[in-house]
Parts: sequence; structure tokens; C-alpha cells
Amino acid sequence: MCGIVGMIGNHDVASTIYECLTILQHRGQDAAGIATCEEGKLELVKNNGLVSDVFRSESAQKLKGLSGIGHVRYPTAGSSNLEEAQPFYVNSPFGIALAHNGNLHNADQLKKELFAEDRRHINTQSDSEVLLNVFAHELQNASGLVITPDAIFHAVSRVHKRCKGAYANVLIIPGYGIIAFRDPNGIRPLVYGVRKTEGAPDEYMVASESIALDQHDFELLDDVAPGEAIIITNDRQFYRKQCASNTQLSPCVFEYVYFARPDSMIDDVSVYKARLRMGEKLADQIKERWGDEEIDVVIPIPESSRTSAIPMAYSLGVKFREGFIKNRYIGRTFIMPGQDQRVKSVRRKLNAVELEFRNKNVLLVDDSIVRGTTSKQIIQMAREAGAKKVFFASAAPPVRYPNVYGIDMPLCEELVAHNRTEDEICEILGADRLIYQTLEDLEAACKEGNPKIDRFDSSCFSNEYVTDVGADYFEKIGIQRSDLAKQGNV
Amino acid sequence: MCGIVGMIGNHDVASTIYECLTILQHRGQDAAGIATCEEGKLELVKNNGLVSDVFRSESAQKLKGLSGIGHVRYPTAGSSNLEEAQPFYVNSPFGIALAHNGNLHNADQLKKELFAEDRRHINTQSDSEVLLNVFAHELQNASGLVITPDAIFHAVSRVHKRCKGAYANVLIIPGYGIIAFRDPNGIRPLVYGVRKTEGAPDEYMVASESIALDQHDFELLDDVAPGEAIIITNDRQFYRKQCASNTQLSPCVFEYVYFARPDSMIDDVSVYKARLRMGEKLADQIKERWGDEEIDVVIPIPESSRTSAIPMAYSLGVKFREGFIKNRYIGRTFIMPGQDQRVKSVRRKLNAVELEFRNKNVLLVDDSIVRGTTSKQIIQMAREAGAKKVFFASAAPPVRYPNVYGIDMPLCEELVAHNRTEDEICEILGADRLIYQTLEDLEAACKEGNPKIDRFDSSCFSNEYVTDVGADYFEKIGIQRSDLAKQGNV
Amino acid sequence: MCGIVGMIGNHDVASTIYECLTILQHRGQDAAGIATCEEGKLELVKNNGLVSDVFRSESAQKLKGLSGIGHVRYPTAGSSNLEEAQPFYVNSPFGIALAHNGNLHNADQLKKELFAEDRRHINTQSDSEVLLNVFAHELQNASGLVITPDAIFHAVSRVHKRCKGAYANVLIIPGYGIIAFRDPNGIRPLVYGVRKTEGAPDEYMVASESIALDQHDFELLDDVAPGEAIIITNDRQFYRKQCASNTQLSPCVFEYVYFARPDSMIDDVSVYKARLRMGEKLADQIKERWGDEEIDVVIPIPESSRTSAIPMAYSLGVKFREGFIKNRYIGRTFIMPGQDQRVKSVRRKLNAVELEFRNKNVLLVDDSIVRGTTSKQIIQMAREAGAKKVFFASAAPPVRYPNVYGIDMPLCEELVAHNRTEDEICEILGADRLIYQTLEDLEAACKEGNPKIDRFDSSCFSNEYVTDVGADYFEKIGIQRSDLAKQGNV
Amino acid sequence: MCGIVGMIGNHDVASTIYECLTILQHRGQDAAGIATCEEGKLELVKNNGLVSDVFRSESAQKLKGLSGIGHVRYPTAGSSNLEEAQPFYVNSPFGIALAHNGNLHNADQLKKELFAEDRRHINTQSDSEVLLNVFAHELQNASGLVITPDAIFHAVSRVHKRCKGAYANVLIIPGYGIIAFRDPNGIRPLVYGVRKTEGAPDEYMVASESIALDQHDFELLDDVAPGEAIIITNDRQFYRKQCASNTQLSPCVFEYVYFARPDSMIDDVSVYKARLRMGEKLADQIKERWGDEEIDVVIPIPESSRTSAIPMAYSLGVKFREGFIKNRYIGRTFIMPGQDQRVKSVRRKLNAVELEFRNKNVLLVDDSIVRGTTSKQIIQMAREAGAKKVFFASAAPPVRYPNVYGIDMPLCEELVAHNRTEDEICEILGADRLIYQTLEDLEAACKEGNPKIDRFDSSCFSNEYVTDVGADYFEKIGIQRSDLAKQGNV
Repeated sequence: MCGIVGMIGNHDVASTIYECLTILQHRGQDAAGIATCEEGKLELVKNNGLVSDVFRSESAQKLKGLSGIGHVRYPTAGSSNLEEAQPFYVNSPFGIALAHNGNLHNADQLKKELFAEDRRHINTQSDSEVLLNVFAHELQNASGLVITPDAIFHAVSRVHKRCKGAYANVLIIPGYGIIAFRDPNGIRPLVYGVRKTEGAPDEYMVASESIALDQHDFELLDDVAPGEAIIITNDRQFYRKQCASNTQLSPCVFEYVYFARPDSMIDDVSVYKARLRMGEKLADQIKERWGDEEIDVVIPIPESSRTSAIPMAYSLGVKFREGFIKNRYIGRTFIMPGQDQRVKSVRRKLNAVELEFRNKNVLLVDDSIVRGTTSKQIIQMAREAGAKKVFFASAAPPVRYPNVYGIDMPLCEELVAHNRTEDEICEILGADRLIYQTLEDLEAACKEGNPKIDRFDSSCFSNEYVTDVGADYFEKIGIQRSDLAKQGNV
Repeated sequence: MCGIVGMIGNHDVASTIYECLTILQHRGQDAAGIATCEEGKLELVKNNGLVSDVFRSESAQKLKGLSGIGHVRYPTAGSSNLEEAQPFYVNSPFGIALAHNGNLHNADQLKKELFAEDRRHINTQSDSEVLLNVFAHELQNASGLVITPDAIFHAVSRVHKRCKGAYANVLIIPGYGIIAFRDPNGIRPLVYGVRKTEGAPDEYMVASESIALDQHDFELLDDVAPGEAIIITNDRQFYRKQCASNTQLSPCVFEYVYFARPDSMIDDVSVYKARLRMGEKLADQIKERWGDEEIDVVIPIPESSRTSAIPMAYSLGVKFREGFIKNRYIGRTFIMPGQDQRVKSVRRKLNAVELEFRNKNVLLVDDSIVRGTTSKQIIQMAREAGAKKVFFASAAPPVRYPNVYGIDMPLCEELVAHNRTEDEICEILGADRLIYQTLEDLEAACKEGNPKIDRFDSSCFSNEYVTDVGADYFEKIGIQRSDLAKQGNV
Repeated sequence: MCGIVGMIGNHDVASTIYECLTILQHRGQDAAGIATCEEGKLELVKNNGLVSDVFRSESAQKLKGLSGIGHVRYPTAGSSNLEEAQPFYVNSPFGIALAHNGNLHNADQLKKELFAEDRRHINTQSDSEVLLNVFAHELQNASGLVITPDAIFHAVSRVHKRCKGAYANVLIIPGYGIIAFRDPNGIRPLVYGVRKTEGAPDEYMVASESIALDQHDFELLDDVAPGEAIIITNDRQFYRKQCASNTQLSPCVFEYVYFARPDSMIDDVSVYKARLRMGEKLADQIKERWGDEEIDVVIPIPESSRTSAIPMAYSLGVKFREGFIKNRYIGRTFIMPGQDQRVKSVRRKLNAVELEFRNKNVLLVDDSIVRGTTSKQIIQMAREAGAKKVFFASAAPPVRYPNVYGIDMPLCEELVAHNRTEDEICEILGADRLIYQTLEDLEAACKEGNPKIDRFDSSCFSNEYVTDVGADYFEKIGIQRSDLAKQGNV
Repeated sequence: MCGIVGMIGNHDVASTIYECLTILQHRGQDAAGIATCEEGKLELVKNNGLVSDVFRSESAQKLKGLSGIGHVRYPTAGSSNLEEAQPFYVNSPFGIALAHNGNLHNADQLKKELFAEDRRHINTQSDSEVLLNVFAHELQNASGLVITPDAIFHAVSRVHKRCKGAYANVLIIPGYGIIAFRDPNGIRPLVYGVRKTEGAPDEYMVASESIALDQHDFELLDDVAPGEAIIITNDRQFYRKQCASNTQLSPCVFEYVYFARPDSMIDDVSVYKARLRMGEKLADQIKERWGDEEIDVVIPIPESSRTSAIPMAYSLGVKFREGFIKNRYIGRTFIMPGQDQRVKSVRRKLNAVELEFRNKNVLLVDDSIVRGTTSKQIIQMAREAGAKKVFFASAAPPVRYPNVYGIDMPLCEELVAHNRTEDEICEILGADRLIYQTLEDLEAACKEGNPKIDRFDSSCFSNEYVTDVGADYFEKIGIQRSDLAKQGNV
């Protein structure tokens, strides 16, 4: 997962883009980059590290110009190289820089085509470099000596034809403007807005999440629609066009569960409200299924489950308490020579306040369960703190299948729910009882905010992929499609 | 404020001390240091920065040895120099390193005496270097060629006679062991514990807060008593002795309000429970004084007020909601050339979730109000998010006077409550109503955990100082004692 | 001025290229870079700084592969940016990286053409990026889907048509091989050689100076001829072809005077021998013109004039002595706050050994005189050390005109000899007598090594440029062509 | 070996001390440090690395004050730790910082005494920390509450009694002044001088070599005499006193051979002139012993042998030529993963100019031969360059014994001359003939400059040590005294 932002303004934009990247930092802490344009010259600073580290260097001072784009990168397997930090840049045609959020599952095929047919060399393992070159090649073909909106829209439509997967992108062309587009399923989020000032041209911002706009007083205009492209030129002409046929809005449901900031709007749904509803629906289910159990206290597992856990507690008529204190300053482990790397224990990050556990039946709430190792340790901590019974609730259904649209999930066999029933999982985690949100409830909790959403990408729960993912891709990421097919029947 | 830790163990202690310092990092983020001893050699690594940064360097690898001490420093005026990072070291007599939490208000006088009478040169502005040299000089006088517990206890008793203020210290003497002591009023916290392993010598830890012991499975034995010193020698002899007459336990009440981690025990009082009680008492007062007001929701100001706010909401029968989302990745501001430093807005750190404010009467809860600038901005944010009425509650009384015992407070004139009534403060903050905890309730909330505590240092609320602070010291920190005297009558 | 190297070998080439760059470091201390290829992937590391600093970082460890190119950059006005460190890279067509030594005087015009006609965005001020894109564009036009030697030779011939100035280049195309070519006047040096190992493919190296080959046991095969291109493919096919008509070998005479290492062969002339001959010819002239003067000792100004000064002393029958000791560790000046930057005195770098000056008539020898400020200070030092008379000899003629082929010269008005007679210069420098080599003698000293050299680029002495430099270019570098024309008559 | 400097001036002295350290950098490239005093506060910056690196950091800006001392450290076995960078500091009594050049051979004994009797903890392996603490302890005993010259002189006399070995020291006491003294044999050099300015107090400098004074226009007043101490107080009182009985000036002959800069005066002998005489005397010997050989050219091995080689060539009536070109930019070797560390070949540093070797009988000249490995490789290079015969001359006698006075020599068994005759050495080196300076000639060459020098420390040639070195010390450095005794007869 990654976070992207683009802006055209009336003053140097770098410091605003920097602020946006810190606001979007939860979408990726692995690398960060900003490209700005001044008088036809592109300045680019990117590096591994947090936003506050990357732009500490003096070189960041060169990021001048009234337009720019930014990127924060999530660490995904095989892309931790510095050279795969974004934005990416090609100088032909016209000079284009791109920041990409998502994942292409036909990148290998495209890379071969690009070299064999388009004579473009892709020098990294990044599908973002592939996507940029597909766009560049198509723009080269579509354009004469001058850039036109039509040529750009045509190039985007060609990208939609050639690229398979999820992508929300923002691009900058020196001397021209910025461009943003989203794949025909609208899997990854992308919004845009405007800031109006008396006597000055309108300023525009595009970003992964609306919170970046809010914090800088941009008015949210709309989500970029699935398949749509928008263009804002340096002289503030605004163009938008649907560049794909057969689009269907299918936002990633995991954004609402865990990934996005609660104070963002994604595809017109408040993430915060969606999480409140997740908590309420889960409470309903608990009341229905665990009517016999006495629960003394609801305790969230920090940080992201708190929003759901509060209304759960109210609905259950049970006290809500911060039973776990988080160590805010946790860092890397300090390894002395000759010492084995210590198990990265959850205890370094969390501490149980004994008072809230001693002789109580506690209901622990997390947003989701992935590997299960953390949940298991936390349940153990609850027991050591004196809990009588430990119940565990997940605001999301069991995670059983790989995500191929940009969320970095472990291999199937590492998912605790893969190929296991809920009872088996409960036993592995060591809880007294375990409850998962149903997929129906989860999707309903999200959809309630915007009934126009037809469907979600919920593939990691359902094994149903909104794009046509080839068997070769599943193989590449270490799993047989046939295995998944069988799984589907579990 | 600072955090300190000392340990003697059966393996290299540096990595455990490192972990303790990250656990105590909330007590000081300005600088960090560790000193360890191996075969009579002291290794010392210290630098400005967070614990995770300071010990990233290769040099940290030299921190070998079975005993050591550590320190995290809070940025106080005039002590941000690297050379004032702790531990401090003197090589005569015997070699002694010290880590200090607290503040001496007669340091200037002592510095002069040390040079003129004891011929010891103090090279920094740090009162910790002064304290170390007083101890060293007294130990030099009290010792023959070999170190004895009696000589150490005598030296501590001399420190108690010469040094005025608050101090909790841990020291290490190469080839001998570690020493800890606390001022006769026990203002700053200090606990110690033991970890027993079959077939191995007992391991000991001393730390500012019990959470450091808990996290490493040390059993909490006791607080170091006011005026007491303890010694643990390398061969695990344990000595303790009261080294002062006229001691009176007077712990700093601010530790319970804000400073300490909620999951710590300080002087046998659970900080977490004390904060719950602060919330309950404040709720009682609200019910009594604001019976006429309708409150729709209780919203804590992250992070530290959450513990108090939850029981408040329950007691008031009002919903508790996370109305503010904190930006976890906030860093320094990025300054472009030619751009003025932006006002460090609270908006960079917090964002209001509109849903929880729109058309509601909200009760915002903070642990305390110091300058009032943040509170004012937050109240403004609540209004902009659509709140009908904004009420504000402080879990501590008005902060009106300087702290001279190690908490870095702004100058009196910067304290919003200095010389102002609660109504005046309410108006400045822009709240509809404002309520403060009474000092009586606050002390009761803390004392309930340990009735043996006679009194608290509550001087920043009450203007009553538990030591004899000279007028010259108040003058040095920019205030006339007489002003305070007058204040006392407000 | 810059240094370049390229290599295809049987093992990872990065460490050998690194060594070559330290050997060529005298050609540029401003920035350094290496690009290597492994399995079609190009790895690139470049930064400002000395070779030993740039490749100290861990990132240098990624420089794997059996082929690669390297570059050291001389600090020229307006090109000190990190982003203008070389090699440069474009990904279309095929992926091409280039390292360039020289200067184009029609780069501005080419940059405009590239954007307007070829739709290639040039993002820096570097003429090397321009040259790379001209080559890339022409290769794109000349190639089908596969690269052929013919297409490359055609592209080089187009470069010769479009680019004006001096250039010696080495390029690498991932998965294909390396390419080297030299401008039709052969102004900047470029040699290549082979290393044969029983039972293994031949290894090839291309470099600015033969010393890089010697030091790694490559046999020097030849200079790249003016206008010629050579190709060595990854499977060790070797191709060479003349790609220009009307070529004329015109090596830069300043390479022999000062720039190149004495132990290099350039266009089949030993730099060392050329310098010996410069010294002998200058001695002849002294004997002829200064027969009346008694010279007691010949003292070279370290480092580069030593080679000429030794035979001068022998020929004159006078003692040769190291009268100046160089401070080998001279670094940047340490500036205290509030202190003005000290004049960068020659005294920081050199110290006179009084014994060799006291009461003597000394003949100081330097390779050339550019600004004259250093010479003036050195003459003053000689006098302060007690010299009776101070004579000064320059192994090169007066430097009076700008160099437009890659040697970074100051502006005309800063050249002490610009618009001045030798007597005027002597007076400014403060010498008792001053002698310059004649251009005739200088060229003869060089040509004696290879009679096939028709002419030299001696433009900074003669104002005669071997290419057609436009008036606009002279204007750009701050001088009117007409001024030079007039100068020509001086 | 190390370099030291101290200064009291009328402006901040840090930048001048910095310049002095770059001038003395040849005496130690391993670490550097400066301590300055302002208003009784000592500022200290030290680190591993070259002078130009150590003081690049911002922290160097704190080095304010009108007095200061500096140090550059030579890498000796077991002292490469950062914490052993100098100056060293103790705060009791009075605060004292010290910079030391030399070596104590009874440091282990002193360290034990200091702890057992003086209760001073020595925390490093550095004999400099030992020496500082001996001085500090004796000053503590000798002083009342105020410092007096008498107390200082008494403390120095005690140092002379307790410390055995070589030492030239400069110390600073905050608020008092600087002190310098030299061991009773005057083994290591130390000079001082004054700079007079109309209307301002005299400024003083103390340094290892006179060149530091010359370069800053200080007038050389004198060498510090063996056993003598000098004091310059902050108010510019100057005191000097002989603090030892039975002194005998015995300067280290290796300073003249190799270590010192040629443009320095050491104990009133010009190093440059001494080297000229070494060359002349060696030429005499060659004429006498090798009358039958025809030598075509004299070639120095850069850098330090050049001064001797030039007069040798004149005296022999043979051409002097720079046959070896040094790579000025040689740095660390670049190691690729999986690649073995390459042999650090001399070829990386030097290149032979074939012209000067081909078919010639060459006489190579070096200042001395230590391990012999470099000499062997150079002789091999000369042969590969086509030399007919290769003769080798060493301006110093065979190095056969350890140096215990601060020059870092390899172990005896690594010395090529240890236990070998000249013929055996010649065979190992692979020369056709080998000639060494005689010790008599070497000492005469030096003594000619100052007949008052009674003797030299020439122990590494003669096995005669000017101090009473215990058998235990020889054992510690890996050699039996008895072995040496036998050696003495070779």
C-alpha cells in the first residue's frame, strides 16, 4: 500500500506536499519522495525512510515550483530498494514523473512487451516503472509535437487496456500540469479538491485520502471515478474524462477495516462511521450468539480497533477500558554482539494494566486477524494479567486469501485462518471464545455510507477477485490457483 | 524531568537498559546515555536524540558488562548541550558515573564551593555534574584506599546536607557496584526490584518507574525511601540505609497527573487508578456544579487524558468518543527557503472527526492546562467542527507557579492561570464553561492508593514548596519570590 | 575536465572501475559515478565528492556485473549539482548510460531541438545529458526492435553531425555491451586495450588515460581515432568504424602541459617525455635570452612542474632543489563564528625552505600561469625567504583566451596574460625576470612523440579554435568574439 | 607518534590550532582533538579521523576561547578507540586537559599505583591518561586552594620521577593557563615561540615542530629543554624551570630520518639540512664501496626520500629523475561482496615511468627500510619496467629493534633486518646491491646541525635504550630482552 498526493498552487508546493505525506504516512513508512516543477525543470528528492527523515537533508531545499507530486511507500517484498522509491521519471516523451498506489498483476508480461515492442528498458522490479512506461509509450504514440488533453486521455485509455490490477496514480509533466487516474474498478482510493482564494487562481490537490485535503483547507470535490482521468494544467484548466468502458466501483474493503485514517472519506463513505457500524454489528452478533456469556469489560487492542470497540461496549452495556498501554517510543531492538536477535515480542509494544484484567471476563477487540501471532501473545498477556475468561472479537472476517491489489499480505500458509475453521483458529489463538465479523455485515457497514457502491474488493476474505488474475501470477506469489479454488469451498 | 535506570545482572545488561530507556522515554526525549562496566572499565555512550537514535551507532556495541546505568533527558532551558547528556563521570576517587533525575536549587552555590574549597572544576551548567562532584568529594573524604558501604552511606548523608532540591539518582562505581538514593522529601520517584533465577545470583534493577521492572520480569521490592540509599555490589551484596533525618515523603503530584506512564506504580500508588479516580471526582464535581448543562459526548484530548475521561463519561452517563484523531507521524516542519516558519498549529497534530461534534454539546477533557494555547486551538477546532457548546475539563487544578524540582515549566507569565481567575481563563480559552479539579480532590485521588503518603509536592498549584527555595533561585528563573507570595493569596 | 572509463570483464568490474577512477581522479575531484550491468539490469551509484567517499556507502555493494562505465567530474561553473553527476541514463530506447568528457558549445540549441522536434525533456544544465539524448534519439530512429552495430555507428555519425565541440564518451547498453567514441577533432583523449587470459574471453577497457590500463595489466591497443566509434559486445565481439568525414587529430595541448598524469600516453605521445622536452626547450631559450644572468638553483613549484624542472636544471648546469614543501593534509579552512573567511593563502599549502633561497638567485618553474595570483604569492614567499633575485619560468605560453572544450578556465579578464605583454605580466607577478615557453616550442615538444599529429588545440594560447564556435557561445561565457579577434593581434 | 600544539592568544585560538594540526597531520592521521577555554569553561572536540573531518561538524563551533591545546594521534596498537583520542581531561584538581606525544613504558605499574594509592581510576589503555593522572595527583598534593607556578613545577618534577619513557606534553588549566614539559631525555620534540603585536599582549605557541610556528608568524624562541617545564598564564606571565636532575638531550634520530617535516627545526637542527647531509654521506659511501658499478640514474621513492636523493645524485654525478609517479588520490580499497580483500599492492600507490628504467642501472633511494615488503615490490616494479640492474640505498641504518618511545614499529620478527645480515636482506629484497647508511654517519649528519646534542635515541638501530626499559615491558610488546641482547652482537 502507498499514499500519493499531487498539487498545483500559487506558491511553492513542496512544504504542503511534505505535510500531506506526513498525514498519509500510515499508508507507507518505507520510503518517501517528492517531485516538483519550476520553469520546466523537474526536481526530485526521494529516499528510504520516514517523511521526516527523507526531507531533512539540504537537498530538499531545491524542491521549488508551483506544482508537484509526492509518494510514501509501503514495504512490499522485493521493492525495498532505494531505486524503487517513487516518484519515477522518464524523459521521453516530454518528461513525465509518476506516483503510483496499487499493484499490477500482469507487470512481468508488460515488461517484456515494453522491451520487445516498445524498446523501453525497465530497470527495476517495480510495477510502477512499468505503468509509467506504458503511459509514456502510449502518449508518445498519441501525441504530435505538443501535448493535448485528448492525447493524454487516449494514453490513459490505453493504460486501462494494457494494465491489469489496481492503480491510483498521479503524474506531473514539466511545463504542462498534473494528471490523475484510477483503474476501471476503482480499487485504490483517490480524491481531489480545490482551494479558492479571492484574486488568485484556484489551487488543486489530488490525494489518496481526503484528510490531506481537509488539513490544508481544500474543499473535497469528488473521488476520481473508476476509469476516469483528470487533468489540471499549469494555467488551471481542468479536464476530466471517463477513459474506460465497463467500469464498476469496487473499493478495497480493507481500507475501511484497517488501512485508511478514520477521519478520511473514501468513495463518499466516512471511514470513522464505517468502523462505528462495524462495532455495532459485531455487538449485535455477540448478543445473538454469546447470550450466555458474561462480559465484564471491552478492551481494544491499540490503535486502530478503538473506533469499533467503543460502540461495541455501549451496545453490549459493558465498560470500555484501555487495558493495554502502548509504548509510544518503541524502536528497533538493540543487539549486542553475541546476542541472538530477541523475539520481537508484543510485550515490547504493549503492557496490560492488571487492574482491568484481574478476575474479569474480558472481550478483546481487534480490527482483523492476519497471522494470528500477535493476537495469540495478547491473549496470553491477558491471562497472565489475571483474566478469568478471554474473548476475542475481530471487526473483519477471517483473512484467508492473498491480496493482489497492493496490500502486502503474508503468504497464504502464514495466514492463521487459511484452511482453518473458526474453532480451529480459536484454539490456536488460545482464546476462550472467538468471533469474527461476517463478510455480509462488514460490507453492509461500509456500504451504508454510500449505497451507490456496487461491490467491494473483498478478495482476501472471499477469494473472489474483481479482475482476471492469471494462474501465473498466483504461482509467482507462491500459491496455486487450484488451492484457492478448493479453499473457496471451506 | 528525566528517567533513570540501573541494573546488575548475569549477562551483558546494555540491551535491557536500552529497553528500559525506551520504556521511560516519555520522561525525556532530548538526550540519552548508558554507562556499563566490564572488568573495571567503564564504557559510556551518550548523545542528543531519542534512545533508538543514540544507540544505533556502532559505538554502542562496546557497552559490555554485567552492570550499568542509563538516562533519558528532558529538554530543560540551558541544558540542551550534548556535553550535558548523562551519565556524568569523574575518575577520582575510584571512578564514579551518575544518572540524575531532579533539580537542585542551590547548584550555583555548590559549584562555587566545589571549586574554592574542594578544588573540583565543574565544566557544565548541569546541576547533575555538581551533585556528582559533591558525592565524589565526600566519598573521597570518607574513604580510605578501599570502598565500604559505610563510606558510601556517609557520602550520601553529606549530599543530603549540602544539596537542596529534588533528586533521584543511580550511580555506578567500576569494580564495585551500583548505588541509588533519593532526596529526603522523595519528590522524584525511584523503585527497585529483583529477578531470581534458579542456580544464578539474583539480578537487581533500579528505575524511575516500575513499568521498566515489570517489562523485564523483575519483582518490585520497594520504593527507595526518602533520604535512603541502597547499594548492590557486583557480588550481589545488598545494603540499604536511611541517610537523612527529618525525611517526609512528598512525591510530585504531577507524576500522577501527567508525567508517569499509567501502568506504573509510584510510591505504592497505581498511576492508572489515580487517573481513574481523578476522572470520577471531576465527574462528581461537574454533576454538582453543572447540573443544568446537557452534555452529549465526552471527548478526550489525546493521549494522556484518556484514562480519566473514560470513567468520567460513565459517571456522567454520557457517550465517550474519540473525537480527535492524532497524526502519529508528525515531525518537524519542512521549511522551504524564503518561507517563514509556519505557526506550529495543533492542527498538524490533531484532526476533529466532524460527526462527533456537529450539533452537540461536547465536554473536552485534558489532564491539565499549562500555557493554554493548545487548549484554545482545540476548542476552536471543536467549534469549527460544528459543536453547539464546548465545555472544557482539566483533571488537574490551575497551574499557577513554577516547578523547581525538575519539571520544565514555562515562565510564570506564560502560564494562562497565573494571576487569573477561572472565569478569566475560560474566556481566554474560548470555552463555554471550564472546570478544574480542586487540589483537594487531586491529592485525594492520588493518596487513596497509599494513605501513608503525608503530603505531595503540589507547588505549581499551591505555591507551597517542600524545600526551602531561596529568593535568589526564584530570581534566577525569572520571578520575584514576593510576586509569588502575593499570588498565594489569589 | 573529466575522466571516463569503461570495461567488460570476466568478473564483477566495479572494483576495477573504482581503482581506475582513483587513478583518473586528477581529472576531476568534484563528483564520481559508476554504472554496471548485470543480467540486463543497470546499477548506478553517483554522488558529489571524491571517489573514495562516493563509494564508501553500502549502496556501492549493489554494483554487480561484468560490464560497466565510470566517471569523475571536474567542477565547472553551473554544473556542481548532484543531479549532474555522471553517468547519465535514459531508458528509451533500450536503456543507455553515458559518461562524457568534453564540452559542447551548441548544447543550448540542441536542447531546444530535442524538446521541440524529438520530444525529449532535458532536465539539467548538463551538455552530457544533451549528448546522450541526441545519441538516444538517433539510435531510436536508426534501430528496429534489435540493436545492431550498424545502427550504433549510424547514430554516432548523426551525433558528429549535430554536436559541436569536444567529446570523448563511453556508453553502456544493458544486455548489449559498451560503446566509445571521440569527436572528429579528437580533442579529448581516449584509449582502449585488452587483457588476455588463457581459457577465458578477452577483457576490454576504455579510458581517458593509458595509466588506467597499465595499472590493471591491460595492453594498450590504440587511441580511439577522431570521429571513430568502437563497440565491444557482451559476448566480446569487437567492432570499430570511422563515423565522420573530414576528421583531423587535434589533441588538447593542455593535457600535456598540466592535465594528464605524466605516466600516461596520449595519442601515442608520452606525457612524461613531452614534459622533459618542455623543460629542455625552455632551458635552451633561457640560455639564449638570459645569458647574462647567474642562476643558483632551480626550484619547481609542486607538484606538476617537477618533471620539466629537473632537465631544465641539468641543461642549465644548475642545482635542482625542492625549495617548497607542500602541506599534504591541507583541507578546508575552519571558520569560527564571527570570523571572516581567511584569504586562502598559498602559505597554507606551501612553505619555503629558507636555506634554498637565502642569498640566492632562484629560478622558479611552473607548468603554466593562469590567474597569476598563486605565482605572485609564491614569488613573494621566495623573497621573504631571502632570495636575491627571483626568476620565473612557465613551461607553457601565456594563457590568454577561454577554453571551450572542457577545461574550466576563468573568465578572460581574470587571466593575468589576457591583453597584457610579458613585461606587464612580469611586473604584476613581481618577478625579476619572467620567461614563457613559445607556442612553437610547446607544440614541438609534444609533437616530437608522434609526428602524425597534424595540429593541437592550443586555442587558449592562440585564439584559434579547431571547431566553429558561434559568437553566441562566447557571449554566453561572458566574452565578445570581436574582443578575441582583436586580441588575436596582440 | 603524535603531534601536539598549545596556544594563548588575543583572539579565539581554535582556528589557528586547527591550522597547526593540519600542518602537523603527518605526525598522526588517526584521531584529532582540540580543547579551548573560555571564562573557565573547557570545550573539547575530538574524534577519530583526519583533522579536516573531525572539525567539520557543527560542534566544532563551540570551541571558543583565547587559549587551547590540540592533538593528532598516530594509530598505535591498542589505542585506536575513540575514547583514547586526545586531549584527555580530569576535573580534579582544578580541571586539567592534556595532549601527549610519546610513550611510557611503566604505564601498567603506574596505573596500578594510581588506583591503589591515589584512588584514581584509569578508564582506558592510554598511557596519556596515566600521565595526566600522575600529574593531577601530584598537583593536588602540592597545591593549596590556589594554583602556583611552584606547585606546577613540583608536580612536573614528580612526573619525571614516576614516569619512564618519552613524553612531550602540553596541558591547559581553565582559568589559569597552559603548561608544557618534556621528559629528562628530550626524546620527543617540543618548541615554543612568541608573536608580538604592537599594543597587545604577547601571544604564545608551543608545538611539536617549528613549522607550526613559522606558518603563523610566531618567532621560534627555543626548544623546551629536557626535563624543563614552561608555564604561560592567561595574563601572559611566562615561567620556565628545569624540573629534573641528570638530564641529557637525546632526541629521537628517526624524527630526522623520516618522521618530521623537512621544513622543521628540531633541537636546533634543520631537518631538511640533515637529510641533505644524509644523502651526501651515503653518496660518499657508495663511491667508496661501489666504485666498480655504473649507475645511470638516481630515483627517489616518494615522498620523504627526495630530499636525500637529490644531493646523492649530484654527488655521484648521475641524473636525478622522478621515476615513480605517486597516485595522489589513493584511498581505501573498494571491496565487492564475495571478493577477497586485495593485497594492498604498492602498485596502487606508485607507477614506474618506463622510460627512466628501460635498460638502465638504477639506484633507488628510500629513507629507511622497515618491513621490507614495500621495498621488495618496488624493486620488482623497477625490474618489470626494464631496469638492467637495481641498486637500493637506505638513508638510515638497518631497523632491527623495537621503538619504545612512541613510534609505532612492527614486532621484531616483522622487521626485515632483525637477525639478518645486509647480504641476507639484499637477497630477500631482490636488489642487485643494497647499501645502508651507517649509524655513525646518520648521527653525524644530524649532529652537524647542533654540536651540543650529546647523543640520540637510536635504539631501533642500536639496541641501546636511553631509559631503563624493564624486561616486562619488552615481554609485553612481544619480545624477550635476552633475544635483543643476543641481537646486539650481530
